[in-house]
Amino acid sequence: MDYKESGVDIDAGNEVVRRIRSLARGTFTTGVLSEIGSFGGLFRLGEAGGDDPVLVASADGVGTKLRVAFMTGVHTSIGIDLVNHCVNDILVQGAQPLFFLDYLATGRLNPDVAVQIVEGLASACRANGCALLGGETAEMPGFYADGEYDVAGFIVGVVPRANVIDGRSIAPGDMLVGLPSSGLHTNGYSLARRIAFDTAKLGVDAVIPELGGPIGEALLVPHRSYFSVVRPLIGERLGLIKGMAHITGGGITDNLPRVLPAGTHARIDRSAWQPPAIFRWLQRTGGVPDADMLRTFNMGIGLILACAPDRERELIDALGGSGEPDAVRIGEIRAGGEGVVYG
Amino acid sequence: MDYKESGVDIDAGNEVVRRIRSLARGTFTTGVLSEIGSFGGLFRLGEAGGDDPVLVASADGVGTKLRVAFMTGVHTSIGIDLVNHCVNDILVQGAQPLFFLDYLATGRLNPDVAVQIVEGLASACRANGCALLGGETAEMPGFYADGEYDVAGFIVGVVPRANVIDGRSIAPGDMLVGLPSSGLHTNGYSLARRIAFDTAKLGVDAVIPELGGPIGEALLVPHRSYFSVVRPLIGERLGLIKGMAHITGGGITDNLPRVLPAGTHARIDRSAWQPPAIFRWLQRTGGVPDADMLRTFNMGIGLILACAPDRERELIDALGGSGEPDAVRIGEIRAGGEGVVYG
Repeated sequence: MDYKESGVDIDAGNEVVRRIRSLARGTFTTGVLSEIGSFGGLFRLGEAGGDDPVLVASADGVGTKLRVAFMTGVHTSIGIDLVNHCVNDILVQGAQPLFFLDYLATGRLNPDVAVQIVEGLASACRANGCALLGGETAEMPGFYADGEYDVAGFIVGVVPRANVIDGRSIAPGDMLVGLPSSGLHTNGYSLARRIAFDTAKLGVDAVIPELGGPIGEALLVPHRSYFSVVRPLIGERLGLIKGMAHITGGGITDNLPRVLPAGTHARIDRSAWQPPAIFRWLQRTGGVPDADMLRTFNMGIGLILACAPDRERELIDALGGSGEPDAVRIGEIRAGGEGVVYG
Repeated sequence: MDYKESGVDIDAGNEVVRRIRSLARGTFTTGVLSEIGSFGGLFRLGEAGGDDPVLVASADGVGTKLRVAFMTGVHTSIGIDLVNHCVNDILVQGAQPLFFLDYLATGRLNPDVAVQIVEGLASACRANGCALLGGETAEMPGFYADGEYDVAGFIVGVVPRANVIDGRSIAPGDMLVGLPSSGLHTNGYSLARRIAFDTAKLGVDAVIPELGGPIGEALLVPHRSYFSVVRPLIGERLGLIKGMAHITGGGITDNLPRVLPAGTHARIDRSAWQPPAIFRWLQRTGGVPDADMLRTFNMGIGLILACAPDRERELIDALGGSGEPDAVRIGEIRAGGEGVVYG
């Protein structure tokens, strides 16, 4: 009995590694000192963090959005989702991404699927100026159903200590500015799939006129990265952004409070923006209560920025200048209490 | 329909996060600036990397060793395996670990199992002076069988650029010194499980006299970390270690060549050490050819160090002084060819 008979094909793994290596090489920034295939990936920090660099790290998955990828056979967007989710998670503390690593686990490796995923990772890494520094591809027979996999991402960024954004200076009266999401991003898919595929009994190719296309496509729209539009505002315009919340699992309800100082709450004005069609369709089709929608989905707002009231116009204009014309005031900070109050 | 009905229990997740947070806090080193629960974990680099710091990062899983944990119901050692595997993967380039993040995915979260895993992660992080800086716990209904999970780890360490170990100076005539493994570490489990549980049809509790205990226990022995014994030799005694290979999936056959310069090969003297009983038992019981054993298992050698021939005694003595009495010369570098030749 040899290793191949036991369900692990080292040679197929090596072939994928060769293809992945070439995709990864296309993302290498000047900091990268190593080739994929070293035990660890080497990244020279250089001047990126100033004289007191703070590393900011995050780990994430894409959750059951994966199942929509399995149903449609489209896997590139999963890689984009994963990188952009991670980029946003460290951006909210003011960090610029340096490098990313992935963990891809399957029962039996399908080289084409693996390469599609890594193509997505690599393209999103390039778009964010982030090196795809390494990763692990694990074949685990019997752990994953045929054609299924799981994928996790790890990101490291850097911010000069003086530029760390942590919400500490947020105070009553501050304004909350929301940036539009591109769709569900990577959260709420257990509920969304149940509504679309179990309750409404749709196939992924079913066209929903109000969504302008097939449900599978609407659910697979990649998680957008906010790095390019927020980048010009962190660092040079120090203090303009007092805090940021990435709206992921738990929605605005659970994520915005993560950056609020004790003794304050956020009042969110639901009439300030219109949730995109996908959220309205999901709520109506699933009969989902409002509070559950708000604690499950981003409802069209993927990133929330807090700023002083007298700098709100400056912030919205600056976002416009860096390519985000649709930033909008969605609420404000109020004294007392905690969490989010919707009005 | 709300999120809980769809199979995701946010509150149970929050309870686990609270328990994990307290375990993680116990690993926090002076560099940690953030609490778990921030979007990203913050780590102040400080002086650790000298004036030209190189970050070294690695991502890993524990492979199908997980299934042995599922069979025995013991999950703490999985966390230790994951951290130590990652620590060794960056140690071979001379890096000191700074922080670690995990990704834990299950179908439905069993809080006790999650806490056991994180207890293992935290204890190994503490032992290696590495902060458990964050992580992601994903509940993915339908992705994992009941009672099963997957876990990935991500580590970042640092090494001053001048101290990076990359094998570049390895030359014909150099000696190869092996450090004992504690068991299978985290590789070869698809084959090992097939031999023990399918071919030999053993239960995990079956006592194998030559292994001194139950097969499940022998297979679950944690992957050891080499950081504490190698640490005194990297940095201060610059140049003593020319290259290091962590013997993981692919065995000595596939891992040692990863640090050999082109135009050299390694000659390994199989009589220099005796593979521990677990490897002899697996080979005999499974009828596994020698070459497959050597390309699947570490065979009792978990780390290989290359040094100049006139410094071999110094290296072995230094390892003895830092707590590793069983380092042994297992071979040498020879000119020409490539890969590993066993003799």
